[in-house]
Amino acid sequence: MNQLPSKLLESAVNEFARLPGIGRKTALRLVLHLLRKPATEVQAFSEALINLRNEVVYCKICHNLSDTEMCSICSNPKRDKNLICIVENIRDVMAIENTQQYQGLYHVLGGIISPINGTGPSDLTVESLLNKVKNNSIKEIILALSATMEGDTTNFYLYRRLSAFPVKVTSIAKGVSIGDELEFTDEITLGRSIINRTIFETAQF
Amino acid sequence: MNQLPSKLLESAVNEFARLPGIGRKTALRLVLHLLRKPATEVQAFSEALINLRNEVVYCKICHNLSDTEMCSICSNPKRDKNLICIVENIRDVMAIENTQQYQGLYHVLGGIISPINGTGPSDLTVESLLNKVKNNSIKEIILALSATMEGDTTNFYLYRRLSAFPVKVTSIAKGVSIGDELEFTDEITLGRSIINRTIFETAQF
Repeated sequence: MNQLPSKLLESAVNEFARLPGIGRKTALRLVLHLLRKPATEVQAFSEALINLRNEVVYCKICHNLSDTEMCSICSNPKRDKNLICIVENIRDVMAIENTQQYQGLYHVLGGIISPINGTGPSDLTVESLLNKVKNNSIKEIILALSATMEGDTTNFYLYRRLSAFPVKVTSIAKGVSIGDELEFTDEITLGRSIINRTIFETAQF
Repeated sequence: MNQLPSKLLESAVNEFARLPGIGRKTALRLVLHLLRKPATEVQAFSEALINLRNEVVYCKICHNLSDTEMCSICSNPKRDKNLICIVENIRDVMAIENTQQYQGLYHVLGGIISPINGTGPSDLTVESLLNKVKNNSIKEIILALSATMEGDTTNFYLYRRLSAFPVKVTSIAKGVSIGDELEFTDEITLGRSIINRTIFETAQF
């Protein structure tokens, strides 16, 4: 992979190889694939990227990616504006949206508190969240961060900041995954699933 | 992955997801990565692709990718012009170049004969090869195609076409890979490595 026969090829391969998870071999394969495509397709690819980078905005309410100043979730009159689900990033918004189980709004933090990565509360959209809670009649905040050390730290930090306001703070349930066998579930999850047991309802099935 | 919050995002993800081996989840990860980069980097990425597609050419001698009409290998006066190595594609050129064991020229076929994929001799640069052999004093043609059924078919086809000319036709050696244990080598390879045994030379080590 040292010798590429063309500087143009070299430069395109370098650009692809900078993307996460793409090495030089894969980059070369992708570039050669694009070379076999009509020039209009490559043009469309390039334009989609430039348009995205230059025109996409963050929703001023929830900080989700959006084509407009207010995203399609925040501007949807059918969504419950009393309920805000706090997530780390826009992929989490999409993951929850795909469940079709949630009708409230979101608040995208833009990360989680992680001393190792140098991310503190000031790097996140915490102040925007607190302003939102102060100025609106929000009934419940759902913490939906990852079940990791960083997620727990961030949950605790947010819980303390939010305790200044008359808002109910909840967290997504932690327990045994659907389809998991108990035998192979780690003991912390299993322990937590016993402590946080719920009333058995046949309606769940 | 059904709901993306932005049409611009959707369109960029779709473009990435069209590349081979990249699904929609990976595409989204790559696009979100690019979104976090400065606009100039995304611009550079796009330009590298468009420049490549519009400006790269195929060497008129060997059909390798090139920035100029004649590639850097064909125009290198130090390369042995009596020797031509036939390969399937430009990745094979790079693979052989990286060995630093070959000083002749190449001829890129642009594929191999494959009835399943609908690739016949007319889809390859066979005529260009025969013209080259007819009009130049080439001493040896090395067949360096994959050791597969299609590779063998193509080798045999080329051998028959080339037999009209006073040129020596050879093939790269097939045998046990360096580092392989005999016990785990398939019997066809092992059988061939015994038939095509070479004189033992300590200079090889």
